[in-house]
Amino acid sequence: MPASPIRKLVPFAEEAKRKNRKVYHLNIGQPDIPTPEVALNAIRNMDLKVIEYSHSAGFESYRRKLAGYYQALGIHVDHNEIIITTGGSEALSFAFNSCLDPGDEIIIPEPFYANYNSFAIASGVVVKPITSTIENGFALPAIQEFEKLITPKTRGIVICNPNNPTGYLYSEEEIRQLGELVKKHNLFLFSDEVYREFCYDGEKHFSVMHLEGMEEYVVLVDSVSKRYSECGVRIGAIISKNKEVMATAMKFAQARLSPPTFGQIAGEASLDTPREYFDQVSAEYVARRDFTIEALNKMEGVVTPKPKGAFYTIAKLPVDCAEKFCQWLLQDFEHNNQTVMMAPAAGFYATPGLGRQEVRIAYVLNIDELKLAMEVLEQALKVYPGKEVIIGTRKISKNS
Amino acid sequence: MPASPIRKLVPFAEEAKRKNRKVYHLNIGQPDIPTPEVALNAIRNMDLKVIEYSHSAGFESYRRKLAGYYQALGIHVDHNEIIITTGGSEALSFAFNSCLDPGDEIIIPEPFYANYNSFAIASGVVVKPITSTIENGFALPAIQEFEKLITPKTRGIVICNPNNPTGYLYSEEEIRQLGELVKKHNLFLFSDEVYREFCYDGEKHFSVMHLEGMEEYVVLVDSVSKRYSECGVRIGAIISKNKEVMATAMKFAQARLSPPTFGQIAGEASLDTPREYFDQVSAEYVARRDFTIEALNKMEGVVTPKPKGAFYTIAKLPVDCAEKFCQWLLQDFEHNNQTVMMAPAAGFYATPGLGRQEVRIAYVLNIDELKLAMEVLEQALKVYPGKEVIIGTRKISKNS
Repeated sequence: MPASPIRKLVPFAEEAKRKNRKVYHLNIGQPDIPTPEVALNAIRNMDLKVIEYSHSAGFESYRRKLAGYYQALGIHVDHNEIIITTGGSEALSFAFNSCLDPGDEIIIPEPFYANYNSFAIASGVVVKPITSTIENGFALPAIQEFEKLITPKTRGIVICNPNNPTGYLYSEEEIRQLGELVKKHNLFLFSDEVYREFCYDGEKHFSVMHLEGMEEYVVLVDSVSKRYSECGVRIGAIISKNKEVMATAMKFAQARLSPPTFGQIAGEASLDTPREYFDQVSAEYVARRDFTIEALNKMEGVVTPKPKGAFYTIAKLPVDCAEKFCQWLLQDFEHNNQTVMMAPAAGFYATPGLGRQEVRIAYVLNIDELKLAMEVLEQALKVYPGKEVIIGTRKISKNS
Repeated sequence: MPASPIRKLVPFAEEAKRKNRKVYHLNIGQPDIPTPEVALNAIRNMDLKVIEYSHSAGFESYRRKLAGYYQALGIHVDHNEIIITTGGSEALSFAFNSCLDPGDEIIIPEPFYANYNSFAIASGVVVKPITSTIENGFALPAIQEFEKLITPKTRGIVICNPNNPTGYLYSEEEIRQLGELVKKHNLFLFSDEVYREFCYDGEKHFSVMHLEGMEEYVVLVDSVSKRYSECGVRIGAIISKNKEVMATAMKFAQARLSPPTFGQIAGEASLDTPREYFDQVSAEYVARRDFTIEALNKMEGVVTPKPKGAFYTIAKLPVDCAEKFCQWLLQDFEHNNQTVMMAPAAGFYATPGLGRQEVRIAYVLNIDELKLAMEVLEQALKVYPGKEVIIGTRKISKNS
């Protein structure tokens, strides 16, 4: 597996910190939002004497309660159609290993969450990217573009909804189109919906599990990491009504014995999180998004869409190369002894050369910090030596 | 992956319980020993507000302290040579995925922990078993037998020391012989040492990490599951001084983001477990072992060695087929409304037909329960319809 552009930046961030420079982390989806009190209390009040293996599919009580959560969203699953996993990562790995053989192809709209690639490589699966564009706000590419990529080896389509890294929220219409496509070609539709609770502007999340008559095709990947700010809890789930898929996934689950007991206690308790928690979190993210998007688009030469979900946006910057720019920010730049760390978007594209001028920004800091971070970015863009200068309609890099 | 003989028994055990029958579980390595108070207290007193991702290799504080634990055992590793994993299972999976390619062969003395097979299959690796025998107390097979199995595709040898399922503790001499063999043929030596603290009769554990000049060859798999009765905590570690192996393992670690935070808190705190805890646990297991082994060998036609480690023994029973017998125990037998569940040993052999009359017994119950369980087993063997009858020196199954 190649090192990602984000990981290559880590030593530079460490170096900046050694110089006592404040680094604003816009590079990672680690929210600063407090974990719900009900979850923390369940851990603090834990009265087990022996921390035993749990059922390989997870506590039955947790699975039953989680089924209730989905049912309230109009997703009709029962507890036998859920396996609790060690994070969404393991759910994804079980999904690929249970549904795909080495050499099989999956289509993923790019830019996409870089770890899809890692798990595909680990499963010997070939990723065929289909490009979504910033000009289109990263909407689903046209279905005929998907059709062009389908070969006899194609076995599935992977989406992330709302999307990491773009923040794009797929519409019901887009999901229905995908549903028809996978049915027509007898593919799996893998949907990573870990950002489900993060939909803004009154938009409703439409899950692949809302599609009717799709029991054999749809595999859902979920996680508590973002929903309850429990990234370190490492609890997720794989959900499907396809009995064969679940029976195979169960064998992988048995091989690793059980998901973490403490994490399951926290995850189960989190289902009692009051509605107000989500309302507050949502209001906070909308404020952060609105501020960040406006600040970015005000900067000369910067363009970013206004995403309706998750807590990311992809911004196009007037720079020669976003990777170089991000490294320069950490290595050579400071504004009032502060700098920012962002994720070069090239790491989210499978097609070489794409996303060269783009970065992913996670608006996971509070507004005060975001203000300072945006100020730093604006100042940095003014003095970056690899700045792209726009002369008339022609773009010329200062360095070229 | 095929369903294991133990898992096939689960519905019969559930059925027995529905009939309100007491089932003594000798089938699984889930100790009844309390988890150390220091670990439980660390969880109860946990004061984090946001449960964030940790470093993909685990808390640095935990790795440093864990390095100290190994150093005290004469294993000279530093924290950069340790990656904290989600249980020993993940450590094993990282080890195979980092060191082996699909089609590579590994040699494992059988009977062996059945999940080695699952992880080998998941990695596309071929397991070549080498048989250890009950007559020899499951000692290491002769080195020339290993040599016979080595082909150009052989890349490693896997041992479990002390051994699950046999309880056999490899001697320093045996480990040194293996060390020379792997060096001669340039193989990896994977050693699963999760039962390290369970060595009896004054025997000292000799780790593969004690071998001198073996930095490039040795990969250690460890776990808190058995050491601190923390099976559900899901914390383990992969340890190696081979930099290339660790760099590759780190990429797998990054793909799954981080090991469980709560588990790491418990694991780190467990390193402060007082010595008396282990002394008490050890004394308890010695008493259980002594009782169980004596009780088994007193039963007509039953043979089992006296293992020096872990908390398992393999017993040979005078039955036509241990799988049938174990099912019959759950389905058709009761003694004072009690029965026992054991693991048919065939599931621990890769060579078809081996272990047909053997079971693995985990002596993880207290002595009072073990007494009742052994009484049940003795009575059951007297009336089992598939009993093997010994006439002179010839063995004839009653049913044949």
